[in-house]
Amino acid sequence: MTHVPDSHPRALSLRLRERLVQGLRLGITSEAGLIAHGRGEALDYLLGERTHDFAEQAIGVAAAFILLATHPVVSVNGNVAALAADALVALVERCPAIRLEVNLFHASDERERRIASHLARHGASNVLHPSEHPWEPLPRLEHNRQKMCRDGIAAADVVLVPLEDGDRCGALVASGRRVITIDLNPLSRTAQRAHVTIVDELTRALPRLHTQLASDQATARESLAERIERYDNALQLRRAVAVLRAGVSPS
Amino acid sequence: MTHVPDSHPRALSLRLRERLVQGLRLGITSEAGLIAHGRGEALDYLLGERTHDFAEQAIGVAAAFILLATHPVVSVNGNVAALAADALVALVERCPAIRLEVNLFHASDERERRIASHLARHGASNVLHPSEHPWEPLPRLEHNRQKMCRDGIAAADVVLVPLEDGDRCGALVASGRRVITIDLNPLSRTAQRAHVTIVDELTRALPRLHTQLASDQATARESLAERIERYDNALQLRRAVAVLRAGVSPS
Repeated sequence: MTHVPDSHPRALSLRLRERLVQGLRLGITSEAGLIAHGRGEALDYLLGERTHDFAEQAIGVAAAFILLATHPVVSVNGNVAALAADALVALVERCPAIRLEVNLFHASDERERRIASHLARHGASNVLHPSEHPWEPLPRLEHNRQKMCRDGIAAADVVLVPLEDGDRCGALVASGRRVITIDLNPLSRTAQRAHVTIVDELTRALPRLHTQLASDQATARESLAERIERYDNALQLRRAVAVLRAGVSPS
Repeated sequence: MTHVPDSHPRALSLRLRERLVQGLRLGITSEAGLIAHGRGEALDYLLGERTHDFAEQAIGVAAAFILLATHPVVSVNGNVAALAADALVALVERCPAIRLEVNLFHASDERERRIASHLARHGASNVLHPSEHPWEPLPRLEHNRQKMCRDGIAAADVVLVPLEDGDRCGALVASGRRVITIDLNPLSRTAQRAHVTIVDELTRALPRLHTQLASDQATARESLAERIERYDNALQLRRAVAVLRAGVSPS
């Protein structure tokens, strides 16, 4: 790992890249995960590598959904674990109802266990993963993607699935759960299918979600429900697309 | 490696991804190379994953530069070798004046040798690389990027540097050589600095360059020089940006 000085204009981007490369070496992320991260980098570059208002709006509603949930679960894949283990643990500390559940696109019991251990090393307890916990199938999905831990997503009313693929996001929506995602591509099937799409970089979005959960801890349930009622995800996606388009212009 | 059927709508994209993952396992590509490939994927997706007229124009001029050159060299990095070894060898067979030279962003004598062997296995002979051939420094660059093999880029009048970083591309331009690049990002420093920028995916562009070299073999030198004279790289880049912008729209 090369040391990246804080003063480097692309310090954050380079540090995230190092976390993923480290994740690959630790057997947490997959090679395909590195390529997927690169796709996100290109989109974040076009978005100006900052959190826009459309993401803030979505984060506000995500916090409302999580605080009103009986059983909120965050689905963790290899990239999410490598990039944001600390931020996930902080989220659970802030809101202990949240369970973390490992689900991988490229099936591997060993990688699931490594991710669970990685999260545990960062302070998470009781991380669920289908290689060691009982699971039920999510209809419409095959192979590894269908596995929902009985005490996790199977029992969840609200699921946060960051950096998720479109099929699984769609199947979760079809199952009647409320689905929140974090995705840098407002045009992706995941972004289009979720109930709440936070178009932002994962490690920028999660601390903001944490802050929002903290500041909403005392907000009345009626106000949270009203915030959800007023929210229009399609509108926020259109705003994100407009910013992305504007990002494609000669500098 | 999973088998990707021809009928899969994203067969080409998935096959390229597999070549890179294989390249990483063979020690030819770097982890950073996988992330860089992902960035390209996102841009190619926005370009509709096809070769546009702005790329065809640039390929025509690239062929003219190569055919008029005394000493044309193609600079090969890990991603280029993993993605396009066969296409590079075909290019040299079509136009034996072309030399292949390995140059890596992340310095590694071992990886240089592996890339040279990889190209040799695909049929290339006399691949140059600074860990085994005498080299001279290219001014304005540090570390590994500055190395130019004496019989390669140091002696070259025309250099094709696909998937190159902006600093090295700029230093080659400043050195007085004619510089051609292949880059999916028309906004990148590389794209903006090169004399000829082919905004296209590498494995689509190289066979087209091959065809162009073949069909221009008998073209008069005056006609090739005239083609270069008429060409406006900034115009083709603006056309590419316009297509990219249009690609960012809800489907």
